[in-house]
Amino acid sequence: MTSFVSSVRTMAGAVVSLGLLTGFAFAQDAHEFDEETLRIAHELAETALESDLAYEITESLTTEIGPRLAGTPQEARAREWGVRMMTELGFENVRIEEFELDLWTRGRSIYEEVAIVSPYPQELYATSLGGAAATPEGGLEAEIVFFDSFDDLIASDDSEDALEGKLAFVNDRMVAARNGEGYGWANRKRQTAWLEAENRGAVGVLIRSVGTSSNRFAHTGMMSSPGGQTANIPALAVSAPDADQIERIHESGETITVRLQTYAGWRGEVISGNVIGEIVGSEAPEEVVIIGGHLDSWDTGTGALDDGAGVGITMAAARLIMEQGRPRRTIRVVLFGSEEVGLVGARAYANARMQDGTLENHVIGSESDFGARPVWRLTSNVADHAVPFFDAMQVEMQHLGILRGGNEGGGGPDMIPLQAMGMPVARLSQNGEDYFNFHHTPNDTFDKIVPEEMAQNVAAWTMFTWMVADTDMDFREPVEAAASE
Amino acid sequence: MTSFVSSVRTMAGAVVSLGLLTGFAFAQDAHEFDEETLRIAHELAETALESDLAYEITESLTTEIGPRLAGTPQEARAREWGVRMMTELGFENVRIEEFELDLWTRGRSIYEEVAIVSPYPQELYATSLGGAAATPEGGLEAEIVFFDSFDDLIASDDSEDALEGKLAFVNDRMVAARNGEGYGWANRKRQTAWLEAENRGAVGVLIRSVGTSSNRFAHTGMMSSPGGQTANIPALAVSAPDADQIERIHESGETITVRLQTYAGWRGEVISGNVIGEIVGSEAPEEVVIIGGHLDSWDTGTGALDDGAGVGITMAAARLIMEQGRPRRTIRVVLFGSEEVGLVGARAYANARMQDGTLENHVIGSESDFGARPVWRLTSNVADHAVPFFDAMQVEMQHLGILRGGNEGGGGPDMIPLQAMGMPVARLSQNGEDYFNFHHTPNDTFDKIVPEEMAQNVAAWTMFTWMVADTDMDFREPVEAAASE
Repeated sequence: MTSFVSSVRTMAGAVVSLGLLTGFAFAQDAHEFDEETLRIAHELAETALESDLAYEITESLTTEIGPRLAGTPQEARAREWGVRMMTELGFENVRIEEFELDLWTRGRSIYEEVAIVSPYPQELYATSLGGAAATPEGGLEAEIVFFDSFDDLIASDDSEDALEGKLAFVNDRMVAARNGEGYGWANRKRQTAWLEAENRGAVGVLIRSVGTSSNRFAHTGMMSSPGGQTANIPALAVSAPDADQIERIHESGETITVRLQTYAGWRGEVISGNVIGEIVGSEAPEEVVIIGGHLDSWDTGTGALDDGAGVGITMAAARLIMEQGRPRRTIRVVLFGSEEVGLVGARAYANARMQDGTLENHVIGSESDFGARPVWRLTSNVADHAVPFFDAMQVEMQHLGILRGGNEGGGGPDMIPLQAMGMPVARLSQNGEDYFNFHHTPNDTFDKIVPEEMAQNVAAWTMFTWMVADTDMDFREPVEAAASE
Repeated sequence: MTSFVSSVRTMAGAVVSLGLLTGFAFAQDAHEFDEETLRIAHELAETALESDLAYEITESLTTEIGPRLAGTPQEARAREWGVRMMTELGFENVRIEEFELDLWTRGRSIYEEVAIVSPYPQELYATSLGGAAATPEGGLEAEIVFFDSFDDLIASDDSEDALEGKLAFVNDRMVAARNGEGYGWANRKRQTAWLEAENRGAVGVLIRSVGTSSNRFAHTGMMSSPGGQTANIPALAVSAPDADQIERIHESGETITVRLQTYAGWRGEVISGNVIGEIVGSEAPEEVVIIGGHLDSWDTGTGALDDGAGVGITMAAARLIMEQGRPRRTIRVVLFGSEEVGLVGARAYANARMQDGTLENHVIGSESDFGARPVWRLTSNVADHAVPFFDAMQVEMQHLGILRGGNEGGGGPDMIPLQAMGMPVARLSQNGEDYFNFHHTPNDTFDKIVPEEMAQNVAAWTMFTWMVADTDMDFREPVEAAASE
């Protein structure tokens, strides 16, 4: 708590006004950084803007491993790659923390056979959703019942034979947005349309791909099991142009019969793991700043944007800091395993820290997991007294084109379990306007990354990581305040 | 020839200067259109800009038929569709002219199994080229010999065992251009890399996809047989991101082993055909203006840009003209079959006209076969005396954003056989800057067409078709001149 008192300084009213403009209703003293910390932060950003390191790390991962579905041999090879890369880059305490995982796979190829058989026979581009079941052996053929939206499916007759022998098709579209906010809404159908359909007796479910692309790629991703159930029916996303086709035929009044043959399913328990490396802090090595990305990817692309980029950006940022010398606190880079299938690595990590009693040592965390377009906003979710620290940080980052967001929200998917246990978080939001054109499709490949944009990410990450690691500021609620609430 | 004399008028020098600017080194009297012809041409363009007819025709073809590979039942269904659509639209003399075709198909699904097995196992997105053979039963596995370019392959050791047991990989890239001029050069490898590889003992050939897209789609298309040979080896295009992957691994010095399993091959003789419909001319019904597009498409997309658009644009243009009444000459719309596999329908048409003695009656021809982006240029290939007619036509089209090109070049692929037999041609060139992002890939689907852009095409086509049909201008070399050359 002394750190809080000692590092808050009075500054010009302009910063307070800025706080008000961005929605903070209280005036507060501005934060002033240590001069040497600032000098190094700016030097780091300059170096980062000239560095290809993140790009090279991501190239290596996406080329030498390629797709790396959670729990597969490819993901295991990615862990070995992570250990090798971290060791080469000079990280300390490089290690793998293993955990168990229920494996789901597509079963055969990334290609799955889906076709309209009537009224207008043609093959469709479609892909099973994570957690989906296979068709019966030999495939299945069924008529489509068309739902304009997920809400329409939910509102439909929910008797247990309402869709008996049918394939439910759910058509709603996703809206593109810089911050990706259209995803949550559109994704509801991916998560639980299978359950709504199965409860009504459907033999399967098809959804218009989540995502904003008009390319003929289907968007995969994990389904949810609100009650821990396992899907007994196949569930697939069809590409937007194919969904258009189904929509047009439906609107002409014709009944559409579709044939599916898929092999997806659960394969039993396997080993996955997180890869961890550190720069040990000079003065408070027990205090941990945790950053990282996730190592696993979907199987149809090579996971360049999701999340090879986050792996590359955060490893490169830490490596550039390492070249400047040790910050006060320890910087821990975690390459999480099995993010795509339910934050399994992140949960394992948080539970392990509960077990070993080091959870409280995590002073702040942030993940990069939204591609590699330029960072445009810094948000935080820290104690009130620490907000001016991030207000002042954004001022230092404004030459990178970064605005200040509010003091709410998360630190990236793999920070969710730690944040739920009280860890402060921050986030460097990338421009995600076109992220969902590529995300979870075959088209998520290395060529989609622009080196200069990625370097801007690394510049922001070096500044953020250095500044939160080279301070004694406590970002948590003071214990007394937290207790009295 | 009287028609030539009677319709050439003296006009302002400005038009002559325009001719000079676009590269005609001779001054010539300007052409002046009949006032009523002009009035109707402009009325047609205005109507066309407000019409969705081409869009609706293309929607119907690409939805109700979908992919329609030459010689398949889908192409036969497309012919039935064409007869039905032409009849509904009020065309006269609607008929199918059948011809025989050697059928080639992919054999099983649009999905073909290709994967790197070493050093970094991962599936690739690839597709057989038209005319390719299947792998041996059970597939094949072979090392890649990497050629930076097609020229490098040609220049390589050509002894018959130079590539024995290997897979040749040819890497050159296509350049995007408004007029698509990068295609010919890049396409050389698609046409004959198989032959170069086979002659050197290779077990197969892979090429970086022709096309300009960075999407993860492979670009198919027909191979050539300069000496009438049939390929005995599999030949596939791999998508650009996958070609990047192969290139990166190759550059790292690793040997790449690839596994293929394909089922492509020739299936024997089948029936294909052209669909023909007319607006019979009022004064010179025996004189034929031939326009159209091609009905067949590649099998991986739904052939919306190539060439559902051309079918829609030219049928709609003719229909809008029909609503204005009959022009002097007959307008014949031909929906060619089997264009993609070697202009088979176009050759059959031209040969049939040789047989029935009506070839000389074809006063001019033009095909729309380059997507549906805005028309930006009018070119002609007509006798010198007829050049001012097209100079003057471009002036009338300038409000549509159309420039005048030169008096050389073709009238579209399916006009090639007729042009070779002496028929004058013209072309309304569409902006093809992004055409090869979609062309011959799964991504050639209806959603890629912008209705307003397609309407601009129809406007240009109504003007062109009406103006060449409602004149007595002869576009051929005068018989005396042709004979004396």
